[in-house]
Amino acid sequence: MKIQLALDRMNMEEAIEMARSVEASIDWIEVGTSLIKEFGVNSIKEMKNHFPDKKIVADMKTMDNAVYEMDLCFQSGADVATVMGAASDVTIQKCLEKACEYKGQIMIDLLNVSDTRLEQLRIYRQAIFCEHVSKDSQENSGHAMINMRNHAGSMRAAAGGIALSSLPVMVRKGLDVIIIGSAITKAKDPAEAARLFKETVNGKKGVKEV
Amino acid sequence: MKIQLALDRMNMEEAIEMARSVEASIDWIEVGTSLIKEFGVNSIKEMKNHFPDKKIVADMKTMDNAVYEMDLCFQSGADVATVMGAASDVTIQKCLEKACEYKGQIMIDLLNVSDTRLEQLRIYRQAIFCEHVSKDSQENSGHAMINMRNHAGSMRAAAGGIALSSLPVMVRKGLDVIIIGSAITKAKDPAEAARLFKETVNGKKGVKEV
Repeated sequence: MKIQLALDRMNMEEAIEMARSVEASIDWIEVGTSLIKEFGVNSIKEMKNHFPDKKIVADMKTMDNAVYEMDLCFQSGADVATVMGAASDVTIQKCLEKACEYKGQIMIDLLNVSDTRLEQLRIYRQAIFCEHVSKDSQENSGHAMINMRNHAGSMRAAAGGIALSSLPVMVRKGLDVIIIGSAITKAKDPAEAARLFKETVNGKKGVKEV
Repeated sequence: MKIQLALDRMNMEEAIEMARSVEASIDWIEVGTSLIKEFGVNSIKEMKNHFPDKKIVADMKTMDNAVYEMDLCFQSGADVATVMGAASDVTIQKCLEKACEYKGQIMIDLLNVSDTRLEQLRIYRQAIFCEHVSKDSQENSGHAMINMRNHAGSMRAAAGGIALSSLPVMVRKGLDVIIIGSAITKAKDPAEAARLFKETVNGKKGVKEV
């Protein structure tokens, strides 16, 4: 199980410092949508330059214009790019083809994707399927409840308000990628928080389930 | 009926030059998603600085993180920001609240929005409802067919492959905003193309319908 650190709502200096402070405990680094929209794809380039050995996930949240957006992010050093499950099939297909060309991967963001739409998406088996509770929904309801649906045969990821206390459930579900944002970045001691996440993922630490 | 010029897949110098060359014939300037993702929100700031008297539309395509993204684009000078109809209601609601705070407007992008979802979106009457055929779908099928649904009581826009030949249909539908990209930007003479669009919109020129 890989830990993907999601970096959002900070400037690039802070993002790089944050990633540096926890790099021993995390596997993938996500350049969040807010960084991409605030600073452009240069944010991806900078992150890859600073962490050439980490997998860099560009949270492009592509809805259209697949070829152009995928060229942009893969040429900037992304290893994985996100596309919305709500996008057209042709957009998702083009993202997958582009990822293949760059020897990268596509993560399909299942934000607000119905079960019916998910059924249609199953054909994209080479993609990583990411169940996602939005930041806005978390803030609105005060908690996150990630509904891990069946993604048999594909890599599986989850994002949205995952805390150390809710991690064991995720670990037991056997996810491939667990995406952590503020539970690390907003922790008093991000390095220690990341270390605890890593230990739990590795089964070295029993954490009481909530 | 306003003409919104969509600027995509070019650098900022080209985007500003393009807008300058057609400014007499267009009303709103859209900083396209590709410009925002490539160059960050600075693209919005630059455009507003160059065209302080034009309404600037930031094609943010927000899916989540509404408050942060709306602050970003409205503080950069946007007058209108887009949010996806596929986003959660809480995201759309927050975008509307932020727009109100900045005395701006929200355009809901109806890309891949079902009739059922559209029914739910009708409560956001103060938003501009934008029917949208994706670039990827246009390229795939070789043509655009915009399905203008009923958005009674709200401002209505349409985007996706609108050409001079398909404009009269749009004019007759009484849209409030018509979004034109490559039919102007890729024209041999963009200024002349924009002028013809403007004349048609103003009813000064009869164009044979297709």
